[in-house]
Amino acid sequence: MSDFRQKALDYHAKPVPGKISVELTKPAESVNDLALAYSPGVAEPVREIAADPNAAYQYTAKGNMVAVISNGTAILGLGNLGPLASKPVMEGKALLFKRFAGLDSIDIEVKHRTTEEFISTVANIADTFGGINLEDIKAPECFEIEQELIKRCNVPVFHDDQHGTAIVTAAGMLNALEIQDKSLHDVTIVCMGAGAAAVACMELLITCGAQRERIYMLDRKGVIHTRRDDLTPHKQLFANNTDKRTLEDVLEDADVFVGVSGPDVLPPEALKLMADKPIVFACSNPDPEIKPELAHEVRDDLIMATGRSDYPNQVNNVLCFPFIFRGALDVRASAINNEMKVAAVEAIRSIAKEPVPEEVLTASNSDSLTFGKDYIIPKPMDPRLRKRVSGAVAKAAIESGVALIDTLPEQYK
Amino acid sequence: MSDFRQKALDYHAKPVPGKISVELTKPAESVNDLALAYSPGVAEPVREIAADPNAAYQYTAKGNMVAVISNGTAILGLGNLGPLASKPVMEGKALLFKRFAGLDSIDIEVKHRTTEEFISTVANIADTFGGINLEDIKAPECFEIEQELIKRCNVPVFHDDQHGTAIVTAAGMLNALEIQDKSLHDVTIVCMGAGAAAVACMELLITCGAQRERIYMLDRKGVIHTRRDDLTPHKQLFANNTDKRTLEDVLEDADVFVGVSGPDVLPPEALKLMADKPIVFACSNPDPEIKPELAHEVRDDLIMATGRSDYPNQVNNVLCFPFIFRGALDVRASAINNEMKVAAVEAIRSIAKEPVPEEVLTASNSDSLTFGKDYIIPKPMDPRLRKRVSGAVAKAAIESGVALIDTLPEQYK
Repeated sequence: MSDFRQKALDYHAKPVPGKISVELTKPAESVNDLALAYSPGVAEPVREIAADPNAAYQYTAKGNMVAVISNGTAILGLGNLGPLASKPVMEGKALLFKRFAGLDSIDIEVKHRTTEEFISTVANIADTFGGINLEDIKAPECFEIEQELIKRCNVPVFHDDQHGTAIVTAAGMLNALEIQDKSLHDVTIVCMGAGAAAVACMELLITCGAQRERIYMLDRKGVIHTRRDDLTPHKQLFANNTDKRTLEDVLEDADVFVGVSGPDVLPPEALKLMADKPIVFACSNPDPEIKPELAHEVRDDLIMATGRSDYPNQVNNVLCFPFIFRGALDVRASAINNEMKVAAVEAIRSIAKEPVPEEVLTASNSDSLTFGKDYIIPKPMDPRLRKRVSGAVAKAAIESGVALIDTLPEQYK
Repeated sequence: MSDFRQKALDYHAKPVPGKISVELTKPAESVNDLALAYSPGVAEPVREIAADPNAAYQYTAKGNMVAVISNGTAILGLGNLGPLASKPVMEGKALLFKRFAGLDSIDIEVKHRTTEEFISTVANIADTFGGINLEDIKAPECFEIEQELIKRCNVPVFHDDQHGTAIVTAAGMLNALEIQDKSLHDVTIVCMGAGAAAVACMELLITCGAQRERIYMLDRKGVIHTRRDDLTPHKQLFANNTDKRTLEDVLEDADVFVGVSGPDVLPPEALKLMADKPIVFACSNPDPEIKPELAHEVRDDLIMATGRSDYPNQVNNVLCFPFIFRGALDVRASAINNEMKVAAVEAIRSIAKEPVPEEVLTASNSDSLTFGKDYIIPKPMDPRLRKRVSGAVAKAAIESGVALIDTLPEQYK
């Protein structure tokens, strides 16, 4: 067994199994404590909530609690291994929510026969929580699941594999375009992959100014075009009226490549076809669509990002999801809407343009980080993210009218 | 607002809302920590669990995690106030699980249209947890719900309002009978109330030796007898072939009265009808079926228990549920069966017969506690409960063949 493999298993097994526990936030020692925490005292908050459901935010842990929910159909890069096998990932996500945003978070793994059964199961338990983070659910079911749950739930529902990836990608992309002196409105974009992350990335780039007809999306069968009759509804949205059929066809003079597919699918030779000053986001993890060292060999005018922490410009969802929920919950937003997503994009990209605190350099083992080709996205350990991203999201929620609390909380002023 | 009411609300609201939080049991500071907790390290336990579902107990928090699940249809004595209003109670239960048995516990409130929808929702999320404590679900639905969930789930499912109450009642009852020099096999029992707790109490007393035909159960319409045509299946089990119709009819020469109904339904005059050395468990909370001071006025040969902490002999579920789950989870029992319930009864009653540690006297503001009419049940703060009850339950699980771990854990030897 490899050393890292053993370390990872030990980390999960010792000294106690798993990564999270439930702890008490109130005294529970004396008989008097318990008379307040449980019968008879507990009847008082029960009555308050029965009279006004919003009192649940005042008297229970709901308002700081995010459920991380999966059915295990698309676990990391490992595929459909079932709900229980996804548990370490969901607990890991709960750990990240706590570590980065101070949110209490619990994982729920759901077994189900039909998509509707998954949806109704989650909808039925949703009021327990302040927000719901969907995770590792395969496409195309994930689209219907998220849309239906947004309709049926009173709390924000957010499929991180879609929107977390999209937000961080868009933040990095806008910075890369600025450095390459290009505009999102004018660029030609090749998107390799047509799953949950791909669709969400392209939709958010369009929200930020990209033109749908200048996007070429590819699935396993090649370019998604209007004459194909095998397209799911979400792929149809990206069917391009074009004669181009292959990756090479669409890469010719393209400005941007976004890979959310699989390892090594972008040959270095094909990269040569792209326009001047190209941008390549090769986000397949752990093995990117093209290795950065190979890419830089053939294109010295390139900006490149990956999903990996050992190369510059890591597209890491943790830059987004803890803070988008933190901001949403802090103003009791009923949803996470496009305005909030765009606010997160802007907040994340702005941080990369500012001088980096010493502690970030230490945490990321860097000598210096200056806005430029090798630093277009903040580092995950950057402590500015929490206030800035959460604050921007909270403000956007208030301004777009989905926040129950309509003044910006003190910590974000 | 009364002082106690304000105190109870403040306890729940300050300094943070609610009573529980989620905390990390593993380091999550450095980039290296996160590479183990999440991608890429987390893939290793995922693979282990995909290969063997039992590995979830080794690598996740599942094995120490109990879900407290309700639909809010029978909240405390307050009735059907809906799932969200039950949240403070369910969080309170989670607090008690942690406080008394060191179990991580999280509340889940479920909305649903049909009983089947509640059942499938809970069954679909059940694998997330090591065990499921059902709570505050009204009768008769609670019977079907528990039975179906026991069938569909791989982890122990236990409706505490039924069996927790029954176990503590049976423990106290066996001790009271011993003191009154009576035998469960011979006594006539009047059970006022025919809900979840009543049915479970009587079934467990029968398991412990009581005779079904010597039990008279009453609902709102009086004695449940074989000529009634309005009985639910669970009431039919207690339909007595008798001409007696009223509470007074059945109290005549009865040895035992168990009240799980409502306040002041047992008039002192009626109590006079009972046999010598009667036993009265008046468990309605906060107001018992008869006030102890009134009862003792008319019967000085009485042993009396209530659900209240300010009288002797409190029938309190907390004597049972944390420890029955602790024992069940410690040996990975697949169910909580009758053998385990009876083992809990015996362990609880045996503690009341032994000298009481000084700390229990202090915690319960007592000068002395000696086995007798005013001390038939241990105090909730008794530290002996955890080892003794959990150990007895674990042992019974092993011996009855429902435990995956078949040697008694060290702490119980």
